Amino acid sequence: MNEAVRTVPVNRIPIGGNEDAVVVEEPLEIRVGDKPVSVTLRTPGADFDLAAGFLFTESILRTRDEVESIRHWGSPNVVRVALRDGARIDLQRLQRHFYSTSSCGVCGKTSIDALRVNAAQLDDDVRIPSSTLIALPDRLRAEQSAFEATGAIHGAAAFTSDGVLLRAREDVGRHNAVDKVIGSLFLEGDGADVLVVSGRTSFEIVQKCVVARIPILVAVGAPSSLAIELAQEFRLTLLGFVRDGRCNVYAGEHRLSP
Amino acid sequence: MNEAVRTVPVNRIPIGGNEDAVVVEEPLEIRVGDKPVSVTLRTPGADFDLAAGFLFTESILRTRDEVESIRHWGSPNVVRVALRDGARIDLQRLQRHFYSTSSCGVCGKTSIDALRVNAAQLDDDVRIPSSTLIALPDRLRAEQSAFEATGAIHGAAAFTSDGVLLRAREDVGRHNAVDKVIGSLFLEGDGADVLVVSGRTSFEIVQKCVVARIPILVAVGAPSSLAIELAQEFRLTLLGFVRDGRCNVYAGEHRLSP
Repeated sequence: MNEAVRTVPVNRIPIGGNEDAVVVEEPLEIRVGDKPVSVTLRTPGADFDLAAGFLFTESILRTRDEVESIRHWGSPNVVRVALRDGARIDLQRLQRHFYSTSSCGVCGKTSIDALRVNAAQLDDDVRIPSSTLIALPDRLRAEQSAFEATGAIHGAAAFTSDGVLLRAREDVGRHNAVDKVIGSLFLEGDGADVLVVSGRTSFEIVQKCVVARIPILVAVGAPSSLAIELAQEFRLTLLGFVRDGRCNVYAGEHRLSP
Repeated sequence: MNEAVRTVPVNRIPIGGNEDAVVVEEPLEIRVGDKPVSVTLRTPGADFDLAAGFLFTESILRTRDEVESIRHWGSPNVVRVALRDGARIDLQRLQRHFYSTSSCGVCGKTSIDALRVNAAQLDDDVRIPSSTLIALPDRLRAEQSAFEATGAIHGAAAFTSDGVLLRAREDVGRHNAVDKVIGSLFLEGDGADVLVVSGRTSFEIVQKCVVARIPILVAVGAPSSLAIELAQEFRLTLLGFVRDGRCNVYAGEHRLSP
């Protein structure tokens, strides 16, 4: 039990009354200086990682040197990111986010073009046996204490090409779980070779991987058509349905060694 | 197979090469008149329902009489909602949506207060046997042709208190599936007693139910803490983990008859 989990009364039919553990969901407002940038419904915990990961993967922040400090601001549900003097953030991107929604974030042709300009080439030299990758979702699951309690929270984790676990985070929203992992790497200046997610893969999850320069994405669930297209475009290795000792390879098979 | 599903090449490890059916995900821009309001990543199909349901459940539209026409606009991925002369839409709400994200939409204390003002009381006279409700997810699943093909698309459906199916829709995003169902009811001036969703229940799904005045929400997955709080506040009946002949009742048990 932790701050991500709360116990509520429940009537189980047909068994009868009992208690149930549910995932905590609360709004988080992310501010850059005094400007509110986003409100997301998240599971409390790793809020600074979430804010940093969101701003980085939306290409509003580029490097951790731009960040002066990250703090809660008058409420546990508000995080304020203060920028260093001289940091120039991309206000136009920030503006565009205002008329997009978070199952989206950045979309369509223009933003794919923008991504192409911003994102450095993914590391093509990484090689990993598929057997190593197939084993990673179980490693993520082992880290998911809130999933264990509730059966209902997404997880994400970053690994090296040797299968060393770097970070694991949970959240009621799957994009948030990814932002928390990537934000933590970003703030400490670390990189990763593989991102593992507990659910499905959307355009946005692939986008976040590309911006964070993680060349391999492993998902327990299925990818969408747009996730596959974006992965192919950026030569990202995309695996789906990674479970029961099997996987489907949708893009970037060149990084899989026998 | 339909426009919601696309076939892609895949390498199945360890079985070998093959094809796979994946869910189509593409961006949709929703405009009110000439003003872009939202970009959401959705599965094509029922785009007008989606636009109407989004604008209605965000309380930007109140009644279908405000709508002059809904059309694709220069692209299959842009929908334009034209308003009748004299329709006064809530531009402030629309503005607020600009700095929120779609796993959120409307959040926090202020918006719960706003919801309280806007939403009519839910119908407290509806009574349904729990056995009827427990059977509904299978009825939704039977309608989900794209799920059948891909194993990876959310579904939502509206039913009467007698268990008559009114609408069923699919989408890569669970909020979108709900918006499509509610938007279709909204455009035809219909009501419903029960909304069934294939996944988990968040704050936003409950919010959409409340605005659409659907008093019972049945989910195959788990609710979040905030979903339960909002359901209790508005006396919505909230069931989770509705599967295998069982369910958990989290709020509004008074509507369940033996």
